[in-house]
Amino acid sequence: MSAEPTPGPTPDADAAQPFVMARRAARMNPSIIREILKLTQRPGVISLAGGLPAAELFPVTVLREAADRVLRDTPHQALQYAPSEGHDPLREWVAAHLAAKGLPVSASQVLITTGSQQGLDLVGKVLIDAGSAVAVESPTYLGALQAFAPYEPRLVELKGDARGPLPGALAAARGARFAYLLPNYQNPGGGCVPAARRLALADAARDAGVPLVEDDPYGELWYDEPPPPPLAGRWPEGTVLLGSFSKVLVPGLRLGYVVAPPALGARLLQAKQACDLHTPGFNQRLVHEVIRTGFLDEHLPVVRARYRERRDAMQRALAAHLGAGWRWATPQGGMFFWLEGPPGLDTMESLARAVAQGVAYVPGIAFYPDADHAPRNRLRLSFVTVDPSAIEQGVARLAEALALGAGDRPAPVRVAPAATL
Amino acid sequence: MSAEPTPGPTPDADAAQPFVMARRAARMNPSIIREILKLTQRPGVISLAGGLPAAELFPVTVLREAADRVLRDTPHQALQYAPSEGHDPLREWVAAHLAAKGLPVSASQVLITTGSQQGLDLVGKVLIDAGSAVAVESPTYLGALQAFAPYEPRLVELKGDARGPLPGALAAARGARFAYLLPNYQNPGGGCVPAARRLALADAARDAGVPLVEDDPYGELWYDEPPPPPLAGRWPEGTVLLGSFSKVLVPGLRLGYVVAPPALGARLLQAKQACDLHTPGFNQRLVHEVIRTGFLDEHLPVVRARYRERRDAMQRALAAHLGAGWRWATPQGGMFFWLEGPPGLDTMESLARAVAQGVAYVPGIAFYPDADHAPRNRLRLSFVTVDPSAIEQGVARLAEALALGAGDRPAPVRVAPAATL
Repeated sequence: MSAEPTPGPTPDADAAQPFVMARRAARMNPSIIREILKLTQRPGVISLAGGLPAAELFPVTVLREAADRVLRDTPHQALQYAPSEGHDPLREWVAAHLAAKGLPVSASQVLITTGSQQGLDLVGKVLIDAGSAVAVESPTYLGALQAFAPYEPRLVELKGDARGPLPGALAAARGARFAYLLPNYQNPGGGCVPAARRLALADAARDAGVPLVEDDPYGELWYDEPPPPPLAGRWPEGTVLLGSFSKVLVPGLRLGYVVAPPALGARLLQAKQACDLHTPGFNQRLVHEVIRTGFLDEHLPVVRARYRERRDAMQRALAAHLGAGWRWATPQGGMFFWLEGPPGLDTMESLARAVAQGVAYVPGIAFYPDADHAPRNRLRLSFVTVDPSAIEQGVARLAEALALGAGDRPAPVRVAPAATL
Repeated sequence: MSAEPTPGPTPDADAAQPFVMARRAARMNPSIIREILKLTQRPGVISLAGGLPAAELFPVTVLREAADRVLRDTPHQALQYAPSEGHDPLREWVAAHLAAKGLPVSASQVLITTGSQQGLDLVGKVLIDAGSAVAVESPTYLGALQAFAPYEPRLVELKGDARGPLPGALAAARGARFAYLLPNYQNPGGGCVPAARRLALADAARDAGVPLVEDDPYGELWYDEPPPPPLAGRWPEGTVLLGSFSKVLVPGLRLGYVVAPPALGARLLQAKQACDLHTPGFNQRLVHEVIRTGFLDEHLPVVRARYRERRDAMQRALAAHLGAGWRWATPQGGMFFWLEGPPGLDTMESLARAVAQGVAYVPGIAFYPDADHAPRNRLRLSFVTVDPSAIEQGVARLAEALALGAGDRPAPVRVAPAATL
């Protein structure tokens, strides 16, 4: 049997090796964040870059005891191959948790994923054809852009205002395979879409026939009041909801979930099975063992209090150190400040200087679907990873590195809370 | 901004929901094995179907103590986000382990994956364009067919004989993106490719410019003598090697690895990052903590002895219960017997009857790239999951269910050991 070469390959730079890369490989680029994280491992660098939860809040003792119980009581089940859908009691917990937020879903609709990043990959795999339109906010979560890119979508930017994407933008996205939204404390923008806008968005999406992929990693990290109910509640048969245990418990166990209408859920399950058979059963049982008796009810207030304190510390530091021409909103939840610098600033160009001064951030262009036409003067800072004194010192170094230091410090311009800049 | 619909979608059966599936979704089918595994959960059914390692051999105490040490000594590192490449000491362990088998690789070439199933998905994602040729054995591992299918390859069957694929088949596959091979105790065939054939295959692949994807989940499960060195040693710059901890330790932690030439490895890493950011760090540290002091050197002989005993039990049971017209080879390693029944038998059709009689197997057509033209009289039995008395009873039920029971039992025809039927 002979096999003819097919058109469209991307020849690799290294001619000595015989691999012909798939066309989609050209869409995959090393994550800017990942490269930055490497830099920030240098001793003495204060990283305000990666979205790393505060490790000192990890409930280590609780996890350690739970791990021991799981391996004592159900070792064979925890360590054997397991169903692709996930551990049923954990699926039931997720369904009950969502029901308590006003979103009645069946446990059979819950697919446990290897982090919610896998949920994004599965959604891309099942819903995106090469050239099909996918609507995204601009800026949006870099990891989602990376997950979708290999499936070669044509990205359509959703216009927005301070309250989030505009309902009219969804009408204009008619024909898109889905619109990807982060209504709770968007990454990187930090905004939280108000209740009325959520209803309008869901209605506009339904009217336009544009399914919604609603990503909610940060919803539990609210510092003033809980966010409004998810869009999924308004249009359940047209919405895929993604959630995660990374931000509420620990990220290193890689546990997330997807909730989808049944017909789509069946496809996501098949894709999941082809990706990694199933999410580690031990990890699922471990997390369920920790949360089943209400542990998050005591743990989350501790996390919120600590992160609120750090948000306030960063707010103070930014106000103290950044000069004229800087704009930002105070986030009401989540993990990030999203800053707009003076027009001449290029945050990509300045990064090396900042790291040399001992502070790291993520340049804004990393978050734009069209990086070539993105503003160059934005950057993202995480306020959750380091403590208030390191935040103060990091922001001071940042101000100095970006040449907007002490001598040049009028009151900053702040826009209204919860804006998507 | 408007988004026009793109051609080629697969409309979903449920018209009430707005999701348009990607064309590739039509290639994803529910796993036959998975559906069978559900049936086998009925009480009283002896499952010889799934390739589940024997849970009673899981080193539970060792894992429990190691989990406790990891969470005592490095909890923050184990539970935080971690590098996409994997935990460096585990990568170094894999490199040293392969070097000891005569395959000198650098730890920097080792990418830790969420089970070796993820390695297959990554290889497909990076190397397969829609319509590009991929060469596979026929029959071959069902999970590989499922992993590759969403990338829409044109599958080319590699002809083989009792010693494995023919070198000439690789020459004929010129232009294929890669050839996927399982040289050690193939799933489902059970064959082990002899050393001379390995060299000839690697040379033929190099000459034809067809990269090799060498999957080795079972290499440590040998019952008579170790398998010959991997093909990767003969053509390292043209071979991707996949390995797994599922069969040597436990499957439920989902740990595997891919070893690739550097240029390809960089692409696989990018794809990995988009899939799930990284494999759970806790799981990587846990397994490394168990194996770093040589635990597998004592554990594997125990596993081999137990599985050898079960292989022999199944061999005896098959010889005792199966009648004329059955053919099989005694596997020298791995987990499976691959049986050819009498010409009129349809193992797919007979499955429900077998399950009703209290025994489950996997119908052979599940393993063929072209199921429509596959022989219907093959089936796969796992001999590792249940104990010898259950094996004896299961095979007796099988013989009865397939209507080839006690009254009709001449000596079976056996072909040479290690054949790929």
